[in-house]
Amino acid sequence: MINTKIYNKLNYRKTLGAISNFKISKNVFEFNKNYGTKNQSAYQQSRSILNNPARYTIKQTTRFQSSIVSGVNRNTLKTVSVDDLAYFKEILPETGILSTEHLGGNNEDADLLKYNTGLLIEHLGNSKVVLLPTTTEQVSKIVKYCNEKRIGIVPQGGNTGLLGGAIAYNNEVVLSVSKMNKIRSLDTDSGALVCDSGCVLENLNTYLDDYGLIMPLDLGAKGSCNIGGNISTNAGGIRYLKYGTLHGSVLGLEVVLPDGRIIHNLSTLRKDSTGYDIKQLFIGAEGTLGIVTGVSILTAKKPSNVSVALFGLKSFEDVLEMLRISKVKLGEILSAFEFTDRIIMEKVLPILKKANPLGSEHMYYVLMETSGSNREHDEQKMTDFYELLSEKNLIENGILAHDESQVASIWNIREMMTYGLTSSGDTYAFDLSIPAYLMEKSIFDFSDFLKNEGLYSGIPDTYTDPKHVVKFISGFGHMGDGNIHLNVVVDKYNDDLTHKIEDFVFNYTKNLKGSISAEHGIGVIKPRFLHYSKSEEVINIMKKIKNVFDPNGIMNPNKVLPQ
Amino acid sequence: MINTKIYNKLNYRKTLGAISNFKISKNVFEFNKNYGTKNQSAYQQSRSILNNPARYTIKQTTRFQSSIVSGVNRNTLKTVSVDDLAYFKEILPETGILSTEHLGGNNEDADLLKYNTGLLIEHLGNSKVVLLPTTTEQVSKIVKYCNEKRIGIVPQGGNTGLLGGAIAYNNEVVLSVSKMNKIRSLDTDSGALVCDSGCVLENLNTYLDDYGLIMPLDLGAKGSCNIGGNISTNAGGIRYLKYGTLHGSVLGLEVVLPDGRIIHNLSTLRKDSTGYDIKQLFIGAEGTLGIVTGVSILTAKKPSNVSVALFGLKSFEDVLEMLRISKVKLGEILSAFEFTDRIIMEKVLPILKKANPLGSEHMYYVLMETSGSNREHDEQKMTDFYELLSEKNLIENGILAHDESQVASIWNIREMMTYGLTSSGDTYAFDLSIPAYLMEKSIFDFSDFLKNEGLYSGIPDTYTDPKHVVKFISGFGHMGDGNIHLNVVVDKYNDDLTHKIEDFVFNYTKNLKGSISAEHGIGVIKPRFLHYSKSEEVINIMKKIKNVFDPNGIMNPNKVLPQ
Repeated sequence: MINTKIYNKLNYRKTLGAISNFKISKNVFEFNKNYGTKNQSAYQQSRSILNNPARYTIKQTTRFQSSIVSGVNRNTLKTVSVDDLAYFKEILPETGILSTEHLGGNNEDADLLKYNTGLLIEHLGNSKVVLLPTTTEQVSKIVKYCNEKRIGIVPQGGNTGLLGGAIAYNNEVVLSVSKMNKIRSLDTDSGALVCDSGCVLENLNTYLDDYGLIMPLDLGAKGSCNIGGNISTNAGGIRYLKYGTLHGSVLGLEVVLPDGRIIHNLSTLRKDSTGYDIKQLFIGAEGTLGIVTGVSILTAKKPSNVSVALFGLKSFEDVLEMLRISKVKLGEILSAFEFTDRIIMEKVLPILKKANPLGSEHMYYVLMETSGSNREHDEQKMTDFYELLSEKNLIENGILAHDESQVASIWNIREMMTYGLTSSGDTYAFDLSIPAYLMEKSIFDFSDFLKNEGLYSGIPDTYTDPKHVVKFISGFGHMGDGNIHLNVVVDKYNDDLTHKIEDFVFNYTKNLKGSISAEHGIGVIKPRFLHYSKSEEVINIMKKIKNVFDPNGIMNPNKVLPQ
Repeated sequence: MINTKIYNKLNYRKTLGAISNFKISKNVFEFNKNYGTKNQSAYQQSRSILNNPARYTIKQTTRFQSSIVSGVNRNTLKTVSVDDLAYFKEILPETGILSTEHLGGNNEDADLLKYNTGLLIEHLGNSKVVLLPTTTEQVSKIVKYCNEKRIGIVPQGGNTGLLGGAIAYNNEVVLSVSKMNKIRSLDTDSGALVCDSGCVLENLNTYLDDYGLIMPLDLGAKGSCNIGGNISTNAGGIRYLKYGTLHGSVLGLEVVLPDGRIIHNLSTLRKDSTGYDIKQLFIGAEGTLGIVTGVSILTAKKPSNVSVALFGLKSFEDVLEMLRISKVKLGEILSAFEFTDRIIMEKVLPILKKANPLGSEHMYYVLMETSGSNREHDEQKMTDFYELLSEKNLIENGILAHDESQVASIWNIREMMTYGLTSSGDTYAFDLSIPAYLMEKSIFDFSDFLKNEGLYSGIPDTYTDPKHVVKFISGFGHMGDGNIHLNVVVDKYNDDLTHKIEDFVFNYTKNLKGSISAEHGIGVIKPRFLHYSKSEEVINIMKKIKNVFDPNGIMNPNKVLPQ
């Protein structure tokens, strides 16, 4: 629905001769109609493209920096034998085990493919046994047995990670929590939700909707990812700006330790000051310290009004100034501030077969979301904000979306951006935390580096030398949280190039005291880069803590920690 | 300033015959004028009363449950010798050491009294050496030496804790960070503040004020407490409802480990997904794993409008319903929801020599605060909220305070409540997390228990049997966070009574899966009660983690962990 009040106010600005033009655009409706986001979430669309079987054969894949899956040294752990499988059959029903024939199982390799392949080309596991328990006690029995026999276990949720953290590269047992998907309790007063770790994020939101609540995180993979996996990778996503880190919203965890003991710590308390907060260690541990089987999390009141706006701006300075003003003027209702450069917009729109929703091209774009409890107030704040932006000549154009389908259609552009990259060539995708004001500079410096190395002309899609293998560089991301997704698209991956690019980007990030993984974890790809973000002292403490929990090293071997 | 718009609206309700009467009361002004809170914070008032030297001789003291300081077994650590002191003199200037004559120092025991006495009667330490370093390197050298020599260290900040966590009971060295009080940096865009751990909370707020920012926590002791101590006890306080736990807002810590190594982890990043989040362990560790010397914390935009209202209600059911409605109607601007029963109000007002600001007596009182970015919107939301409460007959009376001094004067009543108890007799004060809807029931059940034990008549200040040692029971607290301060005031402490009361309250809390310490930590008083809130598995892991960091056990011995 178009809000005529705002519309008139904005038109009023227009007649006053403001340069900017904040359109409640019919484009949004067209865009939405064609893409039908009302009944099909943006994620599902992305997923259907990504799930194209051809993706394993075409070159357009994304790599998280490295063509080399590191740390996958064959370890000393035992692989599953026929006897072991027989034991698992005592614990789990037939439907709870997938295993191949040579172990006395009933399945083809193909049946296990779903658990052995992730989203990216590096994600190719070789597990012969996938266990699908439905209770914490089953998990405990399995883990206890594996610990005694020194069998490696790879815990898995929705298998939507990008760093290979849930892939069994050494024929470990895959223990999927995906069949543990019951909601255990909801305190509608406090908002504390207790559920199994295998619950799909989107399903939790659907459940909560009846009670006027929402999950405190949201991400592109919501239709498949499990809450246990979100917690284990310390996932970020698009609600982070408003609801903050999982370290704050997770109230308690039930965890099966690597020796099979169960930590029953599903506290629903908001406040607890009784010594070391052990559960924090499992947030971001990617299953290397134990398997999260139950989750207690603080949900939030569902905002009664969500608005999304897309703006076009002429410079990064203007984007920065807009971010500053948005924090003051929109304050408590600002829930997302995403920026992107023009290149990615030019790449993603043709894939979506759509014109630019603004009807005009800009140097930078900002997608902004507000979530509040009073529509009239929120719209007034947004209008005041818009008027201030106009007075300061900060924006060149803008559209505002109110209803759910409009909102989804604009978010869809944001969520499809990665595909805009991978459709153009092999992509090195970085997930960095750096200060917001340095984001443009980081893109420029990266570009200069590649130019000086003779790998890039410095102008997107332009080649003045046969050695120019870089097609373009592009940055977008959660600017409000200081999280940039920095990408370089090349003709074809090669190891020399990979090392050069990684070396530059990680050193650059280290010099800015940034994070080499803002929201996607470490998995199997980044342990050898961990030292760029963590000091030797901290890595040593991490190793000692790993040893406290998992002295036999059976739990998600070779993940997170460097060798 | 009285907001006439709201005033008229509320009067309008009144003329419609609403039972409730939401007064913008002149009482508030009177109250404020007499107490002069404009130039003297409520805390300072409380402090001046609590600092009365007589408090160590009079019986009106508060005990956190136990008359027995537990876990203070003499340990095997060395105490400081003349040689040790000579070494400390190489590291620190004369002004950085307080020590008594027998060690070759220049001070009387009295000079060390400030560091050897806390707020409560149990807090009497016996340290002969207080070290006051000004740099992290000095801390590191001191700690390294003490570790080699096996000298126990008690880290101390503002020494405002209530559980004796910062008191040296076994003649350990007190290492006070209070002279480390520099602000290191502020990123005004992201709000990341980096400072020394000895900065006083209120000073940080004063500094931030110029940049339109505030600290994400606030507590009664703000004029003395240090941010390092807040983090080490995982402090809660009155902004918790809006800004949440320190586990979410602390971005990084600089910590001197028990072997003297320094963890430089003053990240200013909002997002970081690079493995185990080690800094989380120090939040709530009360200095048992290392000494926090530097802090990076996410500050919040200072709300441009803060309003505080005090309501009188007839029943706890109405308080609960009001809490539910406030979360929906006030949403993102609700920043505090405190409740109290009538008894504490009757006790505290005479001490403040004031009439009830509502001009009427009620069964329950609610103090509610909103903090928002737009005064007009906030007041509209508060008015809508008030009107809904009136329609539902949920409130009997109310006053609304807008300007800073009015707000402070109402908060002052809340902050003085503990003194309302201790002026009436010896007080057992519990700091519990339990579900909000069970708070009244917990008071009733506690009352019934004491009645059945023959210790209480069941009616406040009424004695029908000579064995009635209990004067009254009272509950108040941060209801919006599920944190109740449950108190029993008795004629005089005795150990038998102490054990009976503790046993009942802690078992009761355990049965509700509550926390025996919501926001005040464990210190030296509660380690032996830890098992009521933490399972054996978790306590074992805590001990192992302590051993990873501090194998020699020099760091704050006998605190937090049970023997």
